[in-house]
Amino acid sequence: MNAPATPVQLLPEIVPREVPSALLDALKARFGERCSTALVVREQHGRDESAYTHVPPPAAVVFAESTADVAAAVALASAHSVPVIPFGVGSSLEGHLLAIQGGISIDVSRMNKVLAVNPEDLTVTVQPGVTRKQLNEEIKSTGLFFPIDPGADASIGGMSATRASGTNAVRYGTMRENVMALEVVTASGEVIRTGTRAKKSSAGYDLTRLMVGSEGTLGVLTEITLRIYPLPEAISAAICSFPSIEAAVRSTIQIIQMGIPIARVELIDAHTVRMVNAHSKLGLREEPMLLMEFHGSPTGVKEQAEAVQEIASEHGGKAFEWAVTPEERTRLWTARHNAYFAAIQSKPGCRAISTDTCVPISRLADCLLDSVTEAEASGLPYFLVGHVGDGNFHFGYLLDPNKPEEYAVAEALNHALVHRALALGGTCTGEHGVGIHKMDFLRTEAGEGAIDMMRTIKRALDPKNIMNPGKIFAL
Amino acid sequence: MNAPATPVQLLPEIVPREVPSALLDALKARFGERCSTALVVREQHGRDESAYTHVPPPAAVVFAESTADVAAAVALASAHSVPVIPFGVGSSLEGHLLAIQGGISIDVSRMNKVLAVNPEDLTVTVQPGVTRKQLNEEIKSTGLFFPIDPGADASIGGMSATRASGTNAVRYGTMRENVMALEVVTASGEVIRTGTRAKKSSAGYDLTRLMVGSEGTLGVLTEITLRIYPLPEAISAAICSFPSIEAAVRSTIQIIQMGIPIARVELIDAHTVRMVNAHSKLGLREEPMLLMEFHGSPTGVKEQAEAVQEIASEHGGKAFEWAVTPEERTRLWTARHNAYFAAIQSKPGCRAISTDTCVPISRLADCLLDSVTEAEASGLPYFLVGHVGDGNFHFGYLLDPNKPEEYAVAEALNHALVHRALALGGTCTGEHGVGIHKMDFLRTEAGEGAIDMMRTIKRALDPKNIMNPGKIFAL
Repeated sequence: MNAPATPVQLLPEIVPREVPSALLDALKARFGERCSTALVVREQHGRDESAYTHVPPPAAVVFAESTADVAAAVALASAHSVPVIPFGVGSSLEGHLLAIQGGISIDVSRMNKVLAVNPEDLTVTVQPGVTRKQLNEEIKSTGLFFPIDPGADASIGGMSATRASGTNAVRYGTMRENVMALEVVTASGEVIRTGTRAKKSSAGYDLTRLMVGSEGTLGVLTEITLRIYPLPEAISAAICSFPSIEAAVRSTIQIIQMGIPIARVELIDAHTVRMVNAHSKLGLREEPMLLMEFHGSPTGVKEQAEAVQEIASEHGGKAFEWAVTPEERTRLWTARHNAYFAAIQSKPGCRAISTDTCVPISRLADCLLDSVTEAEASGLPYFLVGHVGDGNFHFGYLLDPNKPEEYAVAEALNHALVHRALALGGTCTGEHGVGIHKMDFLRTEAGEGAIDMMRTIKRALDPKNIMNPGKIFAL
Repeated sequence: MNAPATPVQLLPEIVPREVPSALLDALKARFGERCSTALVVREQHGRDESAYTHVPPPAAVVFAESTADVAAAVALASAHSVPVIPFGVGSSLEGHLLAIQGGISIDVSRMNKVLAVNPEDLTVTVQPGVTRKQLNEEIKSTGLFFPIDPGADASIGGMSATRASGTNAVRYGTMRENVMALEVVTASGEVIRTGTRAKKSSAGYDLTRLMVGSEGTLGVLTEITLRIYPLPEAISAAICSFPSIEAAVRSTIQIIQMGIPIARVELIDAHTVRMVNAHSKLGLREEPMLLMEFHGSPTGVKEQAEAVQEIASEHGGKAFEWAVTPEERTRLWTARHNAYFAAIQSKPGCRAISTDTCVPISRLADCLLDSVTEAEASGLPYFLVGHVGDGNFHFGYLLDPNKPEEYAVAEALNHALVHRALALGGTCTGEHGVGIHKMDFLRTEAGEGAIDMMRTIKRALDPKNIMNPGKIFAL
């Protein structure tokens, strides 16, 4: 392999700061075996699901088991002006976890307790290392569930830090709407609390929402209080095939504009259906498809489904197939959640670069169709899935990691797509976050004035620039 | 009148900063007659609906007609380190508008244009002086509506700045959930934009939600993009009387816990029903009452209503009365919205001090009932209304402004109530904001660590402390 496997030209300058041995000694003294400098451990914590692979790993990994552990690690790092990077399960997509300025990784995966379930208030308080599937497993007996479902079984800490969402956001919102309160370790190693379990509040600056989406750059989340929801009395799922992506998208737009409270509406293009069929041994029609879910009372679900079926039919939707039993539904949704892996398997040895634009729903067809045309013309294999009810969709360009020219094509496609989305009033990232990959896009989207405001807040709250530095924007 | 009519001991120190004549000259030069120093104009802008009356008014009032006007006024004030206080309609309740450090008022009420309606995206962009009723009037023909309804016909700018809500929040959320994007004039007089019209975004710090609820202390809002909603296909309203407040509250708790998507559920206590009957010439049963509204499809509304009726009956609810026509509904809701005025009229010459606690729904009965007992024991007349579906309620203590001892009793009741709410995991303000009245409560609620973080952000974004200084927290 001659060419570097990573498009390093896209990385901000990598300038690892010195990690003095005094800090490593202090961490070893405080954490014993829970502070590791083994290369394999460091390497595991120095990468994520992004395409970047050639960044040196952090100098050490601290396995925190409590808020006090996190506070101690941050305080020690602060004393030496050394960066800290929180680590949950490592599923972030935009380079969030990369130690581009060196430093130590604080692994919170052992902080995985559900601390309180308040079924009567529809809230739950968890440690940041709890994963979304674990949470749903642990609250299953209450008849409640937590709806936010990014593709990966991500940690709640990571999901909060990136303002994640997923397929249920069209009805239940994103982490922005569903994080109620936080415990945060600040850049100086202090512990603060934001928000309460009250459903509304006008009590001062909304620090909770400032932290949600701040990608570890303002503090480390050590406790998260979330909204949870009663499992719907009735659920039904359906797939419907369409003659074109446009027909599927136009149906979606109409569903949303009519205010139908659909719980999920996912687009899968014909390519991807083919990959999913191969991977999950399904026999789905290899045409653009909407995968939908309806939550409510039995009659409510029936009403929604009838209204949607009528809209879909008007746009040429056919082969409406219903899945009412939990098993049938699981089969369909597993297929959707496995689309990424199905795609990866379709081109052995490939990596995927995933886009994440989100536009106002009225512009969805314009944004999506032009980008499909461009992707087709590029010759690069891709998959296409989308939370189209929110105007959010993902192309996954499938690359040979040994062919830098393929990276270049994928980046060019992404670049064109993002600029199209921004011109249509959209955003460069609906749910993945900025990390290092989208810093340029964010600057275009938000403008220098807003970036300056973010920078000013960052400098004020983290004067030594030790909290996951070099992410979201350049200081 | 001997004693001061205001509980001045509750005010932070009033230290008006000098407003140099050079600034006034510059403002006159820039704004001509749109800069007023007439006492009557200044006095009108130097008070709000709070109980404070003895604060000197601002030195001048600028009537802004554009973002450029606001930016120019702020830039001039900044050059002289003079405070600016944005003014919408003057309906804030906690002293937000008082010029406790002097300065100039920027009246944005002439910035009252609806700039864009995007019915297909369910969004609207307005200037800050648009009021909520004006907005609904202007978008009526689209079949869409904006649900947030504080008691007053407040400006959208003011509602955003205080993170307001109202009776519909239980279903549609508050300004926190419904402001999508902003244009903001910063403390240096620069204009920035936050957010987009895309429904979701993970693009950097959530400056939109940092501004929402910041009460003019971080910037002046000059454009606001809001979510709007399709008018429900069917609406029905109902009132139901209960043998006790407790029965009404326990019914509400159960409605929420069952996940019934009720659109409004308001508590009115027997006192208040009596006042409303007298004021609005109604013949409502003078018992604790829930006033409810259901939105959805005809069958959905029917289902919700049946489920609620069953719950209410179990708690002794009776005299379920339905209002299906728009006229009947308007009559009931007007009564609710006039409760404040009805109460004020019941004690001629009185002022009301309104509480605003919000607690997790499971603690609502505990919080409310103990406070009713205390209020009864105090002998002070009061009214009680509440957005109980959110755990938020308001006592209004009716005071003779010439009797400082009544202020003291009301403040003591509020103090006990707030501390009870905080002990139950609630907040000191569900929707009115902090202003100057709740600064101490906020400190207790948020803790020094979180207040320090707010303070650090404030200092960084407003280094001269000119943006509505002295509000929310002491610097």
